[in-house]
Amino acid sequence: MAPRVLICGDIVWALDDVKELLGPVSEVIHLDSKNRKEFLDDFKPGGKYHGVVAIFREITSVQFIGIFDKELIDGIGESVRWIAHNGAGYDQVDVQACKARGIFVSNTPGAVDDATATTALYLLLSTIRQFAISERSLRDLKWKPPEVAPRAHDLTGRTVAILGLGGIGLRFAELIHAFPVRVIYHSRRKVQNAPEYCEYFENVEEMLSQADVLSVHVPLRPETVGLVGEKWIRALKPGGIIINTARGKVIDEEAMIRALEDGHLASVGLDVFPNEPEVNPKLLEFPYVTLLPHMGTQTRDTERKMEVRALTNIRDFLTVGKGKDLVAEYS
Amino acid sequence: MAPRVLICGDIVWALDDVKELLGPVSEVIHLDSKNRKEFLDDFKPGGKYHGVVAIFREITSVQFIGIFDKELIDGIGESVRWIAHNGAGYDQVDVQACKARGIFVSNTPGAVDDATATTALYLLLSTIRQFAISERSLRDLKWKPPEVAPRAHDLTGRTVAILGLGGIGLRFAELIHAFPVRVIYHSRRKVQNAPEYCEYFENVEEMLSQADVLSVHVPLRPETVGLVGEKWIRALKPGGIIINTARGKVIDEEAMIRALEDGHLASVGLDVFPNEPEVNPKLLEFPYVTLLPHMGTQTRDTERKMEVRALTNIRDFLTVGKGKDLVAEYS
Repeated sequence: MAPRVLICGDIVWALDDVKELLGPVSEVIHLDSKNRKEFLDDFKPGGKYHGVVAIFREITSVQFIGIFDKELIDGIGESVRWIAHNGAGYDQVDVQACKARGIFVSNTPGAVDDATATTALYLLLSTIRQFAISERSLRDLKWKPPEVAPRAHDLTGRTVAILGLGGIGLRFAELIHAFPVRVIYHSRRKVQNAPEYCEYFENVEEMLSQADVLSVHVPLRPETVGLVGEKWIRALKPGGIIINTARGKVIDEEAMIRALEDGHLASVGLDVFPNEPEVNPKLLEFPYVTLLPHMGTQTRDTERKMEVRALTNIRDFLTVGKGKDLVAEYS
Repeated sequence: MAPRVLICGDIVWALDDVKELLGPVSEVIHLDSKNRKEFLDDFKPGGKYHGVVAIFREITSVQFIGIFDKELIDGIGESVRWIAHNGAGYDQVDVQACKARGIFVSNTPGAVDDATATTALYLLLSTIRQFAISERSLRDLKWKPPEVAPRAHDLTGRTVAILGLGGIGLRFAELIHAFPVRVIYHSRRKVQNAPEYCEYFENVEEMLSQADVLSVHVPLRPETVGLVGEKWIRALKPGGIIINTARGKVIDEEAMIRALEDGHLASVGLDVFPNEPEVNPKLLEFPYVTLLPHMGTQTRDTERKMEVRALTNIRDFLTVGKGKDLVAEYS
C-alpha cells in the first residue's frame, strides 16, 4: 500500500506538480473536515486520514482546524512523520510538540526570499519618498499632498540597518545595494557568506544609532516576541523609518505607535501585524505610513515556487527519508 | 556694476547656495510680477529686470508669467543670454525661440536621474505586485483584495523594455538589474557606454513583442508627442505593463486607455499626465493601476541637487562664459 499524504489547505498553482511529485510514490488525500474534532477523529482506524505519514500544511486550513498547536499535533495519528509547512515563517506549527513526537517539520526557505525582500523594498520606497500618501491624494482628486517634499528623501545616501541577515535579509541587502546605501546588519552571529558591503554590528543599539531605516527580517519565536521594543526604537536615529515584512509580533506595536505619535519615527512600512487580519486602527490615522495586507509572497510565481518546494520536501521524505528544508530546531 | 541674475520661481533648499554661488559674481533679484505683461514691461529701461543677463527658471513661476513660450522669450530684454531651467525636461522652454535670439538654455541632467528612476521602480513594483490596490483594500478595512495573487507577478524573471536609455533610463536599468530581469532598450542610437546587460533593439516593435514591461524615458519634443501610440502599445506582450515617469504627452492616452479596457495591458504606472494637474477620470476607474501626482524628483535631496546644478550653470556662465548643461539642441 502506498504511503498516504494529506494535503491540508489549498494548492493553487502546483496541482500538476502534486501528481508529478507525489503521484508515483504515494496516495494523496485532501483535507475534508469541518472542524478540529472531526479532523482528529479521522486519524483513528477506519478514519479517512488513518495511516497518513506526511502532511502538506497551508494557511487556509486554519479556518477549519486552527493552527498546528500542541493539541493538534498531539492528537494526530502516530503514523505522521513529516509536516511540510508551505511558507517561510512556521510560527503556526508547534515545532517542540512535533519534536517530542518524532515528527519532522520543513518550511520553504529560499522560495520566499525574492518576493518578500521586494515587498520590503517597496515599503521602504513608499515611506521614504511619501508615495502612498501621494497616491491617495491623487485619487482624492487633490493632486499633490501639501508639504510632502520636505518629508521626502532619496534612498540613495541613507544608512539601512537589517535585523536578521537570513535569506530574505540578504536578498533585501542586494536590492538596496543598487541605490547605493550603507548597509549595516545584526544577526545572532556574523554571517560568513555576507557580501562585503554588509557591515556587521554585534551591538544592536550601536547599529541603530547610525541607521535612517531599520528593516526587520527575524522569524517569530518565543524569544523574538516584542524584540524591537521601546529601547531599540528609541536607539534609531530621530526621523527614522521601520520596515516590517517578518511578523507583526516581533515589534512592540504600542512602543512603535508612541514613537510615531511623538515624531521620533518619521514613518513605518508594514506588511505584517500582530493580530492579522486585524489592523490596529491607530495605525490608519498616521498619514505618512504605508500598510499592506501581508502581501510578502503573494505572487503566482512565488506561490508556485513555495508549493513545489513544500511538495518536494514530502517527496524527498518518502523516497530518501528526509526533505531538504528541515527547520532550524532540528539542526 | 555686477551682472544681474533673475530668480524666476522658488528656490526652496539652496538659498545659502544662491549667496555662495552667485553672491560674489552678480546682483541677484527675485521675480516680483503679478502677470506676464508686468513681467515683460519690467525688462525695459528703468524696469526692475532691466539688464538681466541670466534667468533661473523654476516651474512655480508659471502661475504668474506662464511658460517660457515664444511670446515670453521674444519679449524679455535683449540683455538675457542664459536661461537655467531647474529640471530635466525643458519642454516648457521654447528652445528654438531662445536660439533665434542667441539665448542659451541649460537644464539639470544627472541631478534627477536617481530620484526619477526610483519613482519608475516604485511604479513597476506597485503594478506588477498589485500593491496599490492592496493598500487601498487595507485602508478600507477589507484586508486583502479578492483575486489579487493571480494578477501579481514577481519582477524577477520578467523582460523590461526601456524606451530612451539616457541618464534616467540608465539609472532605471541599474536598479532593476538587481532583481534580475532581462533589460532590453531602444534609443535613437545604440548607447556606447551602456552596461553589457542592456540589449539594444533598433526596431521598437520587435523589442516590445518580447517585453512584459515598457518603461518610458524619452523627453517631450514635437516629434515625441504620442510616440507610444496604438501600434507600439499593441506590440507589447498581452498582459503587459507600461510605466511612465517622462511626460504624459509622450503616450497616446486614449490608445492606452483602450488597451486597459480590453485587457491587452494588465496595468499602467503613471507619474505624469498629458494635462497636469488634471487626471483623466477614466484612469481612476481601473483598480489595478498606480497613479502618482508627478513625484519624480520630489525629495528634498534631489530638489536641492537640481537647484544647485541650475545655479551652478549660471555661475559658470558668468565666470567662464558657459554652463556645463547646455541642452541637446545646442550641440
